[in-house]
Amino acid sequence: MIDEGAFIAALRTLPLHAGARGLRDDAAILEIGDETLILTHDAMIEGRHWLPGQDMADIAWKLVAVNLSDLAAKGAEPVGILLGHTLGDGDDRFLEGLHEVLTHYGVKLLGGDTVAGDGARTLGCTAIGRATHRPVPARRGARSGDAIYVTGPVGAAMLGFEALRDGNAKDSTAYRRPAPLLAEGRALAPHVTAMMDISDGLLLDCWRMASAGDGIAFEIDSARVSVADPSRRGECMRWGDDYQLLFTADPRTRLPVPATRIGMVSNADLSPLRLDGKILTPLDSIGYQHG
Amino acid sequence: MIDEGAFIAALRTLPLHAGARGLRDDAAILEIGDETLILTHDAMIEGRHWLPGQDMADIAWKLVAVNLSDLAAKGAEPVGILLGHTLGDGDDRFLEGLHEVLTHYGVKLLGGDTVAGDGARTLGCTAIGRATHRPVPARRGARSGDAIYVTGPVGAAMLGFEALRDGNAKDSTAYRRPAPLLAEGRALAPHVTAMMDISDGLLLDCWRMASAGDGIAFEIDSARVSVADPSRRGECMRWGDDYQLLFTADPRTRLPVPATRIGMVSNADLSPLRLDGKILTPLDSIGYQHG
Repeated sequence: MIDEGAFIAALRTLPLHAGARGLRDDAAILEIGDETLILTHDAMIEGRHWLPGQDMADIAWKLVAVNLSDLAAKGAEPVGILLGHTLGDGDDRFLEGLHEVLTHYGVKLLGGDTVAGDGARTLGCTAIGRATHRPVPARRGARSGDAIYVTGPVGAAMLGFEALRDGNAKDSTAYRRPAPLLAEGRALAPHVTAMMDISDGLLLDCWRMASAGDGIAFEIDSARVSVADPSRRGECMRWGDDYQLLFTADPRTRLPVPATRIGMVSNADLSPLRLDGKILTPLDSIGYQHG
Repeated sequence: MIDEGAFIAALRTLPLHAGARGLRDDAAILEIGDETLILTHDAMIEGRHWLPGQDMADIAWKLVAVNLSDLAAKGAEPVGILLGHTLGDGDDRFLEGLHEVLTHYGVKLLGGDTVAGDGARTLGCTAIGRATHRPVPARRGARSGDAIYVTGPVGAAMLGFEALRDGNAKDSTAYRRPAPLLAEGRALAPHVTAMMDISDGLLLDCWRMASAGDGIAFEIDSARVSVADPSRRGECMRWGDDYQLLFTADPRTRLPVPATRIGMVSNADLSPLRLDGKILTPLDSIGYQHG
């Protein structure tokens, strides 16, 4: 059995569409006539991406929302989704959650497939969107001198996860029902030099964005990062599932949506990422590794 | 737990795109600028859609091929695919098969997702194609007086499955490496009144096509059906996985590809399907029920 990194590296040797910046890395971009389509596919697996016994309505919401978040990071407006659904317990709740998320975001169900299966279920979703701005924002593109921003606090999903797991009185909504920042992504698209959604933790995604860039490094000032629980700042910056947008822009740009400036892009360094001046790497447990 | 029929019926109450004739029924059709896109998603699950121990190269081939076959039935030319891949044993062989099928059909990998999981694996594929003829052929559309055709023999996949399962000397290629009839689908699209690929058995898919139509019934003459093993005609007409194209056309149409005429479309009857004059229903074990 080969590991995931080797698998993805091998996939990149296949006939890839020019717009396909790889699996997991980025959404696919497809020029069709005068339009630019964005395509993403994310899968969730029982026991890994959700807690046993979780309400399947929340799983349906999250499955669609995480795909819409990929579209948000591209400044795309959603066209529709296709589902790959393994039938099982809680399908009635799944349908309710699906109805809620589709109507909430005005997204259409285009089609898909249902299969019957035993054991841990895998749920897949393909989302299709239409780019509203070209060039389409990408992970790659940050320039030395750019400022680094996040649209909101990180760590709320972590607190929500703990509330759900422990059954405590805190609100678990941020973990159960992430909100893809579609309007924010569209508003930001013309102003950013790079953009992605934070799915696997702020620091890991900063590392990825800096690594995708050309001869640059990210310098993050932890005190500037807005976190859901200031007493657990380090954890908040390492937990994923918040789906805030991380982006870079010329520091003189007047941004159309509120965002927190958390650092600066500098020229390439020993490492693509420094936190408060200290080099960090993915070996320092900087976020959620898939998975 | 609700059953698959109820699940799909409930999905149809969701906000569906106008082109989405439902999950499983048909591919989704999306008008984008001047182009018409076809989108399909099919999933395969370990132990249900493939035999334990099967070469994962064949599974990769089939996963992509069955999605391309859905595009073929729409007369579409493939643009690319997205994968939803659960990592596991045989991934090296999976990559080899993926490379083979993508290069063989000139299809590009656009993106996707990989997840780690235990237990039975689910593999998903979304295929995107560009319509070459409008209106796009559909299951619906057959008219009374049309002739019913199949592009080639049915039952070859059944014999291939048995060869693989029993380890006998027969050729298992038809089961392991189905060939989507992309060129045939494109050539036929301007001439047909209805078209679909035969994935679940000739008789079941005839029943579905007739049921999708408006006030029509299919009259099939079993002696005319080309089968891989004439001594097992009934089984050959009920086994799936052959991916021949089933279509209807005006009997005076000169067809651009070879096809066998197997019957006639008549006006609505007690049942949408008669075989040699006898009424058949899905309760008569006419094909592979998903699944």
